[in-house]
Amino acid sequence: MIIVIKSGTTTAEIERISEELRCWNITPERTEGRNKVVIGLVGDTAEIDVRQIQNLSPFIEQVIRVNKPFKRASKEFRYGEPTEVVVPTPNGFVTFGQNHPVVVVAGPCSVENEEMIVETALLVKAAGAQFLRGGAYKPRTSPYAFQGHGESALELLAKAREATGLGIITEVMDTSDLDLVAEVADVVQIGARNMQNFSLLKKVGAQGKPVLLKRGLSATIEDWLMSAEYILAAGNPNVILCERGIRTFDRQYTRNTLDISAIPVLRKLTHLPIMVDPSHATGFSEFVPTMAMTAIAAGTDSLMIEVHPNPAKALSDGPQSLTPEKFEQLMQEMAVLGKFFSRWTKNNSPTATPKFAPISSTVGV
Amino acid sequence: MIIVIKSGTTTAEIERISEELRCWNITPERTEGRNKVVIGLVGDTAEIDVRQIQNLSPFIEQVIRVNKPFKRASKEFRYGEPTEVVVPTPNGFVTFGQNHPVVVVAGPCSVENEEMIVETALLVKAAGAQFLRGGAYKPRTSPYAFQGHGESALELLAKAREATGLGIITEVMDTSDLDLVAEVADVVQIGARNMQNFSLLKKVGAQGKPVLLKRGLSATIEDWLMSAEYILAAGNPNVILCERGIRTFDRQYTRNTLDISAIPVLRKLTHLPIMVDPSHATGFSEFVPTMAMTAIAAGTDSLMIEVHPNPAKALSDGPQSLTPEKFEQLMQEMAVLGKFFSRWTKNNSPTATPKFAPISSTVGV
Amino acid sequence: MIIVIKSGTTTAEIERISEELRCWNITPERTEGRNKVVIGLVGDTAEIDVRQIQNLSPFIEQVIRVNKPFKRASKEFRYGEPTEVVVPTPNGFVTFGQNHPVVVVAGPCSVENEEMIVETALLVKAAGAQFLRGGAYKPRTSPYAFQGHGESALELLAKAREATGLGIITEVMDTSDLDLVAEVADVVQIGARNMQNFSLLKKVGAQGKPVLLKRGLSATIEDWLMSAEYILAAGNPNVILCERGIRTFDRQYTRNTLDISAIPVLRKLTHLPIMVDPSHATGFSEFVPTMAMTAIAAGTDSLMIEVHPNPAKALSDGPQSLTPEKFEQLMQEMAVLGKFFSRWTKNNSPTATPKFAPISSTVGV
Amino acid sequence: MIIVIKSGTTTAEIERISEELRCWNITPERTEGRNKVVIGLVGDTAEIDVRQIQNLSPFIEQVIRVNKPFKRASKEFRYGEPTEVVVPTPNGFVTFGQNHPVVVVAGPCSVENEEMIVETALLVKAAGAQFLRGGAYKPRTSPYAFQGHGESALELLAKAREATGLGIITEVMDTSDLDLVAEVADVVQIGARNMQNFSLLKKVGAQGKPVLLKRGLSATIEDWLMSAEYILAAGNPNVILCERGIRTFDRQYTRNTLDISAIPVLRKLTHLPIMVDPSHATGFSEFVPTMAMTAIAAGTDSLMIEVHPNPAKALSDGPQSLTPEKFEQLMQEMAVLGKFFSRWTKNNSPTATPKFAPISSTVGV
Repeated sequence: MIIVIKSGTTTAEIERISEELRCWNITPERTEGRNKVVIGLVGDTAEIDVRQIQNLSPFIEQVIRVNKPFKRASKEFRYGEPTEVVVPTPNGFVTFGQNHPVVVVAGPCSVENEEMIVETALLVKAAGAQFLRGGAYKPRTSPYAFQGHGESALELLAKAREATGLGIITEVMDTSDLDLVAEVADVVQIGARNMQNFSLLKKVGAQGKPVLLKRGLSATIEDWLMSAEYILAAGNPNVILCERGIRTFDRQYTRNTLDISAIPVLRKLTHLPIMVDPSHATGFSEFVPTMAMTAIAAGTDSLMIEVHPNPAKALSDGPQSLTPEKFEQLMQEMAVLGKFFSRWTKNNSPTATPKFAPISSTVGV
Repeated sequence: MIIVIKSGTTTAEIERISEELRCWNITPERTEGRNKVVIGLVGDTAEIDVRQIQNLSPFIEQVIRVNKPFKRASKEFRYGEPTEVVVPTPNGFVTFGQNHPVVVVAGPCSVENEEMIVETALLVKAAGAQFLRGGAYKPRTSPYAFQGHGESALELLAKAREATGLGIITEVMDTSDLDLVAEVADVVQIGARNMQNFSLLKKVGAQGKPVLLKRGLSATIEDWLMSAEYILAAGNPNVILCERGIRTFDRQYTRNTLDISAIPVLRKLTHLPIMVDPSHATGFSEFVPTMAMTAIAAGTDSLMIEVHPNPAKALSDGPQSLTPEKFEQLMQEMAVLGKFFSRWTKNNSPTATPKFAPISSTVGV
Repeated sequence: MIIVIKSGTTTAEIERISEELRCWNITPERTEGRNKVVIGLVGDTAEIDVRQIQNLSPFIEQVIRVNKPFKRASKEFRYGEPTEVVVPTPNGFVTFGQNHPVVVVAGPCSVENEEMIVETALLVKAAGAQFLRGGAYKPRTSPYAFQGHGESALELLAKAREATGLGIITEVMDTSDLDLVAEVADVVQIGARNMQNFSLLKKVGAQGKPVLLKRGLSATIEDWLMSAEYILAAGNPNVILCERGIRTFDRQYTRNTLDISAIPVLRKLTHLPIMVDPSHATGFSEFVPTMAMTAIAAGTDSLMIEVHPNPAKALSDGPQSLTPEKFEQLMQEMAVLGKFFSRWTKNNSPTATPKFAPISSTVGV
Repeated sequence: MIIVIKSGTTTAEIERISEELRCWNITPERTEGRNKVVIGLVGDTAEIDVRQIQNLSPFIEQVIRVNKPFKRASKEFRYGEPTEVVVPTPNGFVTFGQNHPVVVVAGPCSVENEEMIVETALLVKAAGAQFLRGGAYKPRTSPYAFQGHGESALELLAKAREATGLGIITEVMDTSDLDLVAEVADVVQIGARNMQNFSLLKKVGAQGKPVLLKRGLSATIEDWLMSAEYILAAGNPNVILCERGIRTFDRQYTRNTLDISAIPVLRKLTHLPIMVDPSHATGFSEFVPTMAMTAIAAGTDSLMIEVHPNPAKALSDGPQSLTPEKFEQLMQEMAVLGKFFSRWTKNNSPTATPKFAPISSTVGV
């Protein structure tokens, strides 16, 4: 359920309404949109009559019931106001959101050694990326495949961050590693295979770093939003949804099937920002540039692209990694298309100060 | 197998080589590309030694074996030269191909009555479409659903063609209707559910009108190209491949899943032109504009878009049909994006004369 | 809608009610079950009030609306009475149905030559099969693969029928071949790739031979029953549904995924008899015996098993064909299990006279 | 790679060969089959020449390279000898394996309260089950759905175990809960959504309790065996594979699609015992009995069936739960079929002593 507050209502009155709701064992969550203040109600609202709430205050404009299984993740919950995930990085604040330039995340599948990760970071930064990706803990189908360098790789990511000022996105696979990962990562990634690892979702929801939630291999849109709901319900409003290809009947020429219509569908259903990973979606570097351009046309808020200084020698996912040269060329092409859609900044660099206060500050009103 | 001929070889020598090959019970098919002449060899070439062919003439530059199960449909068969499907319409020739402007096909799911189809044709023409789509024979899941007006609808399509000069694309469902359909249609459509109706493929391959081959609901890329191969092998080189969404595990918010990476994959594998149908792929008109724009970014050669004067009252597929107003607006947006990619002509109108001779004339060298 | 008639109602009264309904432009179809007579109503019944019908006669016990999209195929339409498809073969009548022994259909993928098909027929008959399968027209993914010997193969099937007395099941792929096929076949097969070839469905529905309808590669249960509905609606009540594996994400160790729970699901939804084809479902002969046994445990009414005298030299589908020896051994194992479930006759031979009159005679009351 | 030892070789010689291999940084794992002793080699064997190993001893009969990505899970690794997972329960040892009676696991989706779980345990024991299932930690799509009673539910399971002597199977969702769960559980379950939670796999592999590994919703057979390989590679040889339905395009009448041919496919590929869960596979109790019977015919070694004293009031998965009465009836039917296949013991009760020594004792030779 959400409560739309009339324009011009005082903060005190909003606070009074919220206080009243808490007495009913309901948690109010305030969203300040461009035009409206809305209060999302979390808890057992099934039994509550809309008129009961309406009667709380003459400053209540409307009370709306959210009929989807996902509540906080639903577009209604923020009355259509898109979430902006504002991430502080050494280079400044970077904002993921529908009304912001496309954010580019680039880097290798896994962190192999210091030279390699720092070099890649410098190259992707030079090409215009704002985040470095790189796996310390790698989910691999085979126990005999390279599993990532773990904790020591986290240290190398910290060095790359220091050297470039780029934000860091890296995956956490185990609840017991979360503290370590969150210390280094500016955005904590949940991988496709852990999308329904509900213990992990609850724990990343209970910490402060933004979360990148990759779609599971055969997760429906609704499954995916329900997993986001786990994180939101645990108190972390900063969730980015990453489409990375789904598993279908045809796996001969691409590793997965990029579900491009997920973008407009998500836009209809949720306020959360959207990322596309064309590298995992296709599995072959030759298809990555076309799919990256396509994702921009479809309206993505962000892109994650695998870049490796020497793909042929990569310890994992070489075939889908771009060389730094190819990545630079793609960035130039994307910049032109991004500007066409007014989704690219002049230099695409992080801003010194966020345009809006980080959303997390509005939680727990 | 294909034979690449050296530049400057005389027609007489090419004819001599071809004659020789016919004696081996092999059918040579000549392709004149921008730079090279190549001869595709069709028949039982498994036993033939590459050197045997090489020895036929000093004007042979190279002999290449095609290792894919599809031969004529493979990119190698035309040595990378894209096929141009040139369709004569009352308004002039329209060319489907990689180096040509995006061709827009629009119209209702089914032909309902004369007024409706002529009105729609006039409206989509005014908005810039070059072809009218409209079903006379409708493949419907239920025998109790509207099955199309059949033969009488074909007459109405002929009237719409006359009134507007637009080319006509309509589906054939039965081999026994083919002659009637091909009389009216400028391009004959094979629907998704008939993609592996091999009898029908053979028969549309043996007639002269170009063929639009929709991808089956769970057809792999290879299945699809093998079905194109049926048509090509029967003698019809003018095949357009139409991606219209595949069936996956998630059907809650879209009718099918648009497999957008099929475009670059097909581009790698085949010389045939590509169309995208965002209406059937998504099943909801609200997602059609975004997906149409996306398909252009992905490099499609053509788009098929459902337009109905009154979607709410459509006899079939109303929910996925655009109103003429929405279609006109989309055409304007697509024109801007199409020009960005140099895939849109100034007025996007058919040309008085084809830039290249229709490809069909090169068959049977 | 269906009308349940009270026990003891006279034929004249039932005829009177039917006549009345015809005046309303509704086609009544009578089913005589073991306990009840029911009249299925076909036509535009949406507007008719249940009470209007109830008032037609005091001998009407109950009027029930069928709320599924498939009507004639629904279990309700026959008030739970299972359809018995009784097929006259030279050896006698064979009945496919829920209360009858499991019928075994065996034979090669395609008819290769006279000696081969007659020999196979003799062997599968000796092992206890009641029908010979064998393709004259073969739907093949590649136009260059063996396409079946066509009309001449039909003649060879006729010879095998003569030599053994076995019933013949063979596929029709084209409406224009239907008369020829139906002349030889005792049961006409619609292949998986033609399950939604609606023209073909209408035409096999309009002729007299029973129809075996294979499930499409990605057909839902509902799609499949709607295709059966096409045949039933065209006037042919003798439809057998054949599960032959569906297409899923995993195709490494089996060709398709046998959807075994389709059996109890169909049993709940429809009165039509069910066949399972473990050969196409798995694609490997080594898995066929286990899956055949499994299908019996799941309650199938019939099995279709590929048998080839020399699988290694088969012109098509060799890897999934049993040798005659393996088939004989499997028949012995199935006999024991079939008897366990009371679904196997002493000698499993066709009966001289059908236990029940062929159902087709009750149509068009 | 595996080494087959000649019959009659002394333990000392086998020990000597093993010692030699350890010097090459290879871990030898001994399997004593009915006829042969084989030594599986784990480690980087890619570079080792077969002849090098052959030369180690004249008592080596054969050296075989395992060409699959899964090694320890492959049938070759134990030279075809099926694994027997012997579980000590208060009632005695229960053995899961190909040459043993079918083991039945039954109980509610989740542990709701003491009375309910003890009552259900008594009822399923009386009907012949040897294990009680019951979720303490529940993986639920929605964060607002009942998440299980957690630690307190584990205590209730311990009480049910005490009251009935049944073994306990319950799921672990988080590495940090593993110790608690393993204290109560006789078999630790990894749920479908965690099948590729590699951190969890490593940790259950490093503890001593047997592991039930459910197949992921869209896991291929190979993905699944690779996940088993994680557990085996971490030192735990006692893995049971549970097929519980896969996600396909059709979800209208069943929750998932039971992949019944997975049973013979697994039998060909691996030595590990197999369980089938018809409750989750179908999602509806009405289909459970037929699918349970079917799984026995397909050769399953074990069944997991949801039973709830009052399905209509279940806190989770009520629609797929059998009542105790229905379960008892099914057990009687399964007993008859199980005996038919010689896979049911007279009283199906656990044995006082295991027929074979627990396999775990043979690890780390």
